[in-house]
Amino acid sequence: IAKEVAKLLEMKAQLGGDEGKHKFVLKTPKGTRDYSPKQMAIRERVFDAIITCFKRHGAEVIDTPVFELKETLTGKYGEDSKLIYDLKDQGGELLSLRYDLTVPFARYLAMNKITNIKRYHIAKVYRRDNPAMTRGRYREFYQCDFDIAGQFDPMIPDAECLKIVHEILSDLQLGDFLIKVNDRRILDGMFAVCGVPDSKFRTICSSVDKLDKMPWEEVRSEMVGEKGLSPEAADRIGDYVQLHGGLDLIERLLQDPKLSQNKLAKEGLGDMKLLFEYLTLFGITGKISFDLSLARGLDYYTGVIFEAVLLQQENDHVEEPVSVGSVAGGGRYDGLVGMFDPKGRKVPCVGVSIGIERIFSILEQRVEASEEKIRTTETQVLVASAQKKLLEERLKLVAELWDAGIKAEVLYKKNPKLLNQLQYCEDTGIPLVAIVGEQELKDGVIKLRVVATREEVNVRRESLVEEIRMRTSQP
Amino acid sequence: IAKEVAKLLEMKAQLGGDEGKHKFVLKTPKGTRDYSPKQMAIRERVFDAIITCFKRHGAEVIDTPVFELKETLTGKYGEDSKLIYDLKDQGGELLSLRYDLTVPFARYLAMNKITNIKRYHIAKVYRRDNPAMTRGRYREFYQCDFDIAGQFDPMIPDAECLKIVHEILSDLQLGDFLIKVNDRRILDGMFAVCGVPDSKFRTICSSVDKLDKMPWEEVRSEMVGEKGLSPEAADRIGDYVQLHGGLDLIERLLQDPKLSQNKLAKEGLGDMKLLFEYLTLFGITGKISFDLSLARGLDYYTGVIFEAVLLQQENDHVEEPVSVGSVAGGGRYDGLVGMFDPKGRKVPCVGVSIGIERIFSILEQRVEASEEKIRTTETQVLVASAQKKLLEERLKLVAELWDAGIKAEVLYKKNPKLLNQLQYCEDTGIPLVAIVGEQELKDGVIKLRVVATREEVNVRRESLVEEIRMRTSQP
Repeated sequence: IAKEVAKLLEMKAQLGGDEGKHKFVLKTPKGTRDYSPKQMAIRERVFDAIITCFKRHGAEVIDTPVFELKETLTGKYGEDSKLIYDLKDQGGELLSLRYDLTVPFARYLAMNKITNIKRYHIAKVYRRDNPAMTRGRYREFYQCDFDIAGQFDPMIPDAECLKIVHEILSDLQLGDFLIKVNDRRILDGMFAVCGVPDSKFRTICSSVDKLDKMPWEEVRSEMVGEKGLSPEAADRIGDYVQLHGGLDLIERLLQDPKLSQNKLAKEGLGDMKLLFEYLTLFGITGKISFDLSLARGLDYYTGVIFEAVLLQQENDHVEEPVSVGSVAGGGRYDGLVGMFDPKGRKVPCVGVSIGIERIFSILEQRVEASEEKIRTTETQVLVASAQKKLLEERLKLVAELWDAGIKAEVLYKKNPKLLNQLQYCEDTGIPLVAIVGEQELKDGVIKLRVVATREEVNVRRESLVEEIRMRTSQP
Repeated sequence: IAKEVAKLLEMKAQLGGDEGKHKFVLKTPKGTRDYSPKQMAIRERVFDAIITCFKRHGAEVIDTPVFELKETLTGKYGEDSKLIYDLKDQGGELLSLRYDLTVPFARYLAMNKITNIKRYHIAKVYRRDNPAMTRGRYREFYQCDFDIAGQFDPMIPDAECLKIVHEILSDLQLGDFLIKVNDRRILDGMFAVCGVPDSKFRTICSSVDKLDKMPWEEVRSEMVGEKGLSPEAADRIGDYVQLHGGLDLIERLLQDPKLSQNKLAKEGLGDMKLLFEYLTLFGITGKISFDLSLARGLDYYTGVIFEAVLLQQENDHVEEPVSVGSVAGGGRYDGLVGMFDPKGRKVPCVGVSIGIERIFSILEQRVEASEEKIRTTETQVLVASAQKKLLEERLKLVAELWDAGIKAEVLYKKNPKLLNQLQYCEDTGIPLVAIVGEQELKDGVIKLRVVATREEVNVRRESLVEEIRMRTSQP
C-alpha cells in the first residue's frame, strides 16, 4: 500500500505541480468515460433498438442494485473472479460491484421464488480488466440482457434468444455478422473422448475460449505446457475445434464413432439439431455457424452457448471476412439459480447479453464520418425579442408555452441581440422563433419565424400553441 | 476486521445452518432493493414525467461513471463526507462511489472546459446513511438532476429551476406541495449580524439545516452546547429562522436595521426580490415560501437554495398541512467548477435534483390501494394453436410477426392446451390471440380472437399484420 500511495503522490505532483492549490488529477477513473450529449444521442438510439426488440418478444423489465453481497458473486465466474471490484470494508456487509447481470438475476429469482419469467435488464457492470477503450473494452460498461427462466420444451427459448440477436444486429445495420453456436455438453463430451481428465475440463475449456484471439499452436502449447495435458489429447482436440458448419456437420458428428458413444455429446448434438430446425423456421440459419471452437469463459453455462461477432466490411478488400470482435453472447445456465436456493431447487434459464460499447464505437465513428448533424435537444421554439426591456414579456410567454407542453427556451439575458438569438437556433437546431415586440404585444400577436426559410408570420397569441404544434409535428 | 468477519460468519451460520452447502444470506445489500416488473412500470412513469419536463426546458443529457477518483469527491460535502462509499484498494487508483451528480457534473465541466450548458442527468447515487426504506430513504437511490451552467443575468436560470420543480410535482399529482427558498448569502449575513464567528458559519449552518426534523429548542442546545455558540447569538438566530413569507417579508428584511447593513445579506435579499418577480411572471408564487430556516446540508452552495416538500393530504383531517418529507432540492454553486479548474476559473451553476424514491413510494402505495392492473409487458398478440403438432407453424407465424414489428409471444411448449394459452393472455393482459389450425392453414387464414370480447374472425394471412396493428393502435 505504501508503495502505491507513494506512486499516486508522485503522479499528483507531476500533474498538478504548477498550481499549488490544485493537486488532483482531472480525469475519470481508468477504463471509464463520460458520455457527452452527442454521444448520449447515439447511445439512446442503440438502446431504443434493443429495448424495442426485447419488448417485441414480450419481456418484462427488472432492476437490481449496482453492488451485491460479496458472497453472492463468489464461485460463479471461475478464473475471472479476480476481476471483480470489491468495496472497502467500512463496517457492515462486504460488498462487490456486479460483474454481470446474470448472477444478480439468478439471485433475484431464488430470493423471490420465481420459477417462470422472461425479463430484460439494461445496466452497467464492472470488471477490473485491462481496458482497450479504442476497441470498446471498458471497466464500466453496459450490458443489455434478455433471459427466459422456466421449465419448457427443449430449445424453443434458446432459439428465440438467437432470433433476438439476429433482429438487433440487423436493425442496427452494423454490417455483416455471424452468430457462433456450440454446447457445453458437446465440449465436455469432446474433452472426454479426447482423453482430457475430468478435473481439467474447466481449465482446458478456458484455453479453447482463447482461440478467437490466439492461433491454435499457442493454445495447444498452453494446454500442454501450462496445463499439463498430454500432447495426444491436445492434438485430438485440435482436430475437433477446427470444425464449423450447419446441420450437415451436426449430422456428421452424430455419426462420429467416438463422440456418438459419449452420452453428454450425444445429448448436446441432438439438441443442437433441434435448435437448427427451429432456426430454419425463423429463417436465420444463414448467419448461424455451429462452431466447435466456441467455449465462452463463464463457469455457469450448462448447455447451448453462443457469441455474435461483427465481420469486417467487404469494402476493406480482404479475401475472407475477419471477426472484429464479439458484440453479444449468451447461453443456457440451468444450475445457477439452484446455487442460490436454500433447497437447491433448479430453475432452467437461457439468455443473451448484448454489449453496446463496441456497437456504440462503430456508430459513433460512422456519425463522425458522415458529418450528420445530431440534435442533442428537442426544443421546438425559442422565445426571443427584437427590442430591449422585454425580458418580462419573454418570461411570461415561455411559461405559457411550457404550461401548454411546448418545448421552449429563452436566453438568460435581459436584453439579448436578435442576431444572437437566431444564431442560437442555428447552432442547436431549434426550428422556430417566437418573437415578442411592442407593436405585436399591442396587437395581441406573436411573430413566428421559421429558422430554415426565414419566413415570418404573425400568429394570434391564443393560436400560438396550436401553430407551433402543427409546424413541429413529426410526419 | 477480525471481529467483523466473526460476526459475518455467525450470521451466515445462523441463516444457512440447516443446509450445509448453502451458507450465504439471500438478500440485497443493506439499504438497497430490487425493482420488480410492476415497480419498474411505476418507475418508468415517474421518469417519463421528469424527462419530458427536462426536455421541455431544452436540456441535453450526459452520463458519468458510477465511481470517481476518491480525491474528486474530497472536500465537497462537509460533514457528510463520512457517508461516501470507498472502493477497496486493489492496486491502481483509489475510487469512491458518487455521492451526488453535482460534483461529477462540475468535474465534467472543468475537464472538458465547458462554460455553458443546460443538461440533465438521471442516475443512481450512493450514501452510507442509516436507511429508512419505508420512508423512501435508501443507500442506493436515483437522483434526477437538471443544471444550468454559464454566466447569465441574475436569477433567470434560478427561477427556471423552481419552475421545473413546480411543473414536475404538479404533473405527478402528488397532492399539495411547498417549495421553500432561501439564500446562502442571507444565511451568512444573518449569522454575521447575530454574532456567529466566521469560523463557525458552516457548522452553525448544519445545525439550522436540522430544523425540519428537530424543534428549535434542540437545535439551539446543539448550537450552544456542542458547537460553543453564545446563548445570545443563538437566540438572535432563533428570531430570524422563524420567519417565512413572500415578497412582503423580503421587503421587510431589506429594511431590517441589522441585516440591511450587511453586504452579503443585502445582495442575497436583492436577488431574492428579483427571483420572486420572475416567479410571479411564471405564476407559481402560490407554492413558494421564502423561509429563513432553510439551510441545506451541502458545502458547495453559494447563493439561492431551495427544497420542495410534500404536504400531508387534506383528507387526513389535520388542522395545518404537515411536511412529509423533501422530494427535490437544489441551489446555486458558483465556486464548485473552479475547484476543479487548474487555473481556478469559475463557471456559475444552478441546479435542481429530484429524488424519486419518496415519490415512487407514494405512487406505489396509491397503485396498491386502487387495485389498478398494471401491465408489465406490451405484447399485442399471442400465437396459439388449438390442435397438437402445430409447434412449427406457430414458430413460423410468430417469426413473421416479429419481422413485421408486431409484439408477439408464443408459449414454449410443443403442444400447449388452448385453455392455457387463453389463460396466459388473461393473466398478462395480451389483447389478441392468433390461432393457427389445420383447416385455417389450408384456407390461408388465421383465426384472430379478441380476448376481452371472445369475438373471433378469420383473417387472411397476408392481412394479419395490418389487422393486428389496427386493432391495437392507441387512440
